[in-house]
Amino acid sequence: MTAIRTKIAARTLAPGDRLPSIRGFAAAMGVSPSTVVEAYDRLAAVGLIRAQRGSGFYVSNNALPPLKLAETESPQTRTVDPFWVSRQSLDSDATVLKPGCGWLPADWMPNEALRRAIRSLARSDDDLLAYYGRTRGSLQLRHLLLARFAVEGIQATPDQLMLTSTGTQALDLICRFLLRPGDTVMIDDPCYFNFQALLKAHQVKIIGAPYTPSGPDITAFETLLSTERPRVYITNSALHNPTGATLSPQIAHRLLNAAARHETAIIEDDIFADFEPEPSSRLAALDGLNRVIRIGSFSKTLSASIRCGYIASRPDWIEGLLDLQVATNFGGPSPICTELIAHVLGGGSYRKHMEELRQKLVRARREAVDKLHRLGIKPWLSPRGGFYLWCQLPDGLDSTQIAQIALAENVILAPGNVFSVSQSAGRFMRFNVAHTLDSRVHRILEDVLRKAGQ
Amino acid sequence: MTAIRTKIAARTLAPGDRLPSIRGFAAAMGVSPSTVVEAYDRLAAVGLIRAQRGSGFYVSNNALPPLKLAETESPQTRTVDPFWVSRQSLDSDATVLKPGCGWLPADWMPNEALRRAIRSLARSDDDLLAYYGRTRGSLQLRHLLLARFAVEGIQATPDQLMLTSTGTQALDLICRFLLRPGDTVMIDDPCYFNFQALLKAHQVKIIGAPYTPSGPDITAFETLLSTERPRVYITNSALHNPTGATLSPQIAHRLLNAAARHETAIIEDDIFADFEPEPSSRLAALDGLNRVIRIGSFSKTLSASIRCGYIASRPDWIEGLLDLQVATNFGGPSPICTELIAHVLGGGSYRKHMEELRQKLVRARREAVDKLHRLGIKPWLSPRGGFYLWCQLPDGLDSTQIAQIALAENVILAPGNVFSVSQSAGRFMRFNVAHTLDSRVHRILEDVLRKAGQ
Repeated sequence: MTAIRTKIAARTLAPGDRLPSIRGFAAAMGVSPSTVVEAYDRLAAVGLIRAQRGSGFYVSNNALPPLKLAETESPQTRTVDPFWVSRQSLDSDATVLKPGCGWLPADWMPNEALRRAIRSLARSDDDLLAYYGRTRGSLQLRHLLLARFAVEGIQATPDQLMLTSTGTQALDLICRFLLRPGDTVMIDDPCYFNFQALLKAHQVKIIGAPYTPSGPDITAFETLLSTERPRVYITNSALHNPTGATLSPQIAHRLLNAAARHETAIIEDDIFADFEPEPSSRLAALDGLNRVIRIGSFSKTLSASIRCGYIASRPDWIEGLLDLQVATNFGGPSPICTELIAHVLGGGSYRKHMEELRQKLVRARREAVDKLHRLGIKPWLSPRGGFYLWCQLPDGLDSTQIAQIALAENVILAPGNVFSVSQSAGRFMRFNVAHTLDSRVHRILEDVLRKAGQ
Repeated sequence: MTAIRTKIAARTLAPGDRLPSIRGFAAAMGVSPSTVVEAYDRLAAVGLIRAQRGSGFYVSNNALPPLKLAETESPQTRTVDPFWVSRQSLDSDATVLKPGCGWLPADWMPNEALRRAIRSLARSDDDLLAYYGRTRGSLQLRHLLLARFAVEGIQATPDQLMLTSTGTQALDLICRFLLRPGDTVMIDDPCYFNFQALLKAHQVKIIGAPYTPSGPDITAFETLLSTERPRVYITNSALHNPTGATLSPQIAHRLLNAAARHETAIIEDDIFADFEPEPSSRLAALDGLNRVIRIGSFSKTLSASIRCGYIASRPDWIEGLLDLQVATNFGGPSPICTELIAHVLGGGSYRKHMEELRQKLVRARREAVDKLHRLGIKPWLSPRGGFYLWCQLPDGLDSTQIAQIALAENVILAPGNVFSVSQSAGRFMRFNVAHTLDSRVHRILEDVLRKAGQ
């Protein structure tokens, strides 16, 4: 391959020229003809040469210049909106520090269990490797999920569960199923920034219920249900993003009664469930999956490179959601992905991985609180688990401005207002404790706070 | 595991009972304590037992009865609508014959190349296994795609390309980007049934241009553009689904001019491109990706179990589509999936696989034509490639009725009207030649036609 590439680069072989015959080139290079065939095929795959049936290989006329795939995906000039944190942190390279991102460092994930699952996948049968799979997704993974639901007190039957491409797509499908443009949707203020981005795509009116350390402010919640009549309320009950708060049983109960009175459906995104030391109140469990729809994924605890989400809901809604998923995605997640997830989740090492992860996060949280405290940054509350700290900055500082200064220093932060529909969280910042331990983060933050304070 | 399962089933261990200690049970069974830990963890993963911190393992109170995951996904009673073929063929088991389905048999796919790619994936670094990946998707796969585009005469730059979860999701994203409820969209009549299903989800008005053996009926097409002013036209140029027809250069040219006059965007779904013996006219190539958007996937040639699609378009549209994909899917396909696809596509064996596949399909097509001919079923045209035959049934037979009778015999057919927005294809049926070779198909079809003719 190198020999041919060099000849093309040096124009010894020009566009349209025939390449040496396979046999002749093999003899000249002292390799087997099959080695030459493979090298030619690889060069053809990248478009440098092309095969002409029955006549050999030629240098492409339209051979591309070596591609400079320089990525322009992290413009410094982008507005700090609900897309800002995700686009910046997904598209930045490994040299960028990401205390604002929404995932754990790669070496905190169960990679060895995953490698075992991948090796086992290589031995699976042709049908699994070739076919789309069922519309509800892998039987084995659904079985494992139902068992886990039962432990959390959620009794669901197989016809109440479907797998989706991603956790976000689970939410998107439900919004398409339940909402029409112009409808009203309630979210927490603050809440996960992508809920706002997604709801904007659905062209609905977004209202926010102020969030307290034990759930939404229930009086404000009840008033908003009466006055605004939202069709849907979206929340995280366990380890709420960004605050790390947990819904109390009392608020859960009142909230559910209010939603029933006003016929509001509730989407409970339980993506951080596995990070809790013990399961807390679940709206899905209280309600019995009647008006509450539970969604989740495996991106935070297992792998974000193996995308898969799920929806647990009323059976009639699942049936409609399945049609919608066929129409818009031709089925659910990649069967090879669900096979890998089921292998890790059903394997003996997952529980231990999660236990170790929780311990590691307890230590990381303590250390991050200390470090941030020294900068005058204070947590709003002390979360029971997970990897977020929702923090207040020292007086007079604006988190959006700080995030912009930090970006220039190759540090991605998560400024409060990207989480806030009312834009009332300008003094707040969400920190991912696992990414805040890096000593460079502390040094740069110190510097950035000083600059911003001037 | 079996020992514990048996005890639980026999109620020797009742809900709430403490399991034998790990050390004690290991000694009793003559295995190592770590073996018992793993067995207990696996039983906990399926919910049969639960771990209580510092106190050992207990039989779950809410242990589920062994799940009967009987699937109810193929109701015989379902209406024969655009969802019918997909839901029936995705959810039926391996004993059902599927001459109506839209994919090749598993043993026709490049499974060995895929297994090599999977083994190589097991050795990749933690970052690839753990992280979401870039919003545009794998650099390597995009590089390979741009090289392939160049061979088809489509010159695109890296900022004109993004990867998506699936080919269908590519189309869905574009519709969300370009359309609003109430807009008009033109499709071919007949066309791939899922275009209709998807457009219905977007609440747009659907109009159909009659399809001829060389593309849409251009006079009708031009008239519809003037009178109905569709915002978007969706088509397959190469090996059109279901007819197998190919767009002629003359129609391509006129069509593009008409679309330009009326400011209609065109989505060219090139999912069957690799099945052509030589590339035919591409709207994307003629237009230079200005108003034409090209989409595709790898499900038909490489694997449907590894979902990934792509969009090539104007750079400013790609930028908007990326935001939309973050909002609705939090990024694109699973990075492990794109890694596997890039490995196979960039490997030396893919070109040979495709050449063999095309040869195999030539033979299968000939044989299917012969077999169907003996039943009085005649192809509308002789396709240049691919795996579909669009056929006319003998006089007086209705393809929907035949499909319903065949379903009762465990054969899934693709009746004409699921492809036709005007419902004018009642005498047509789409056959997948690779699945039509099975001798049982011929026998059952013969029987079904006889019953329907009575």
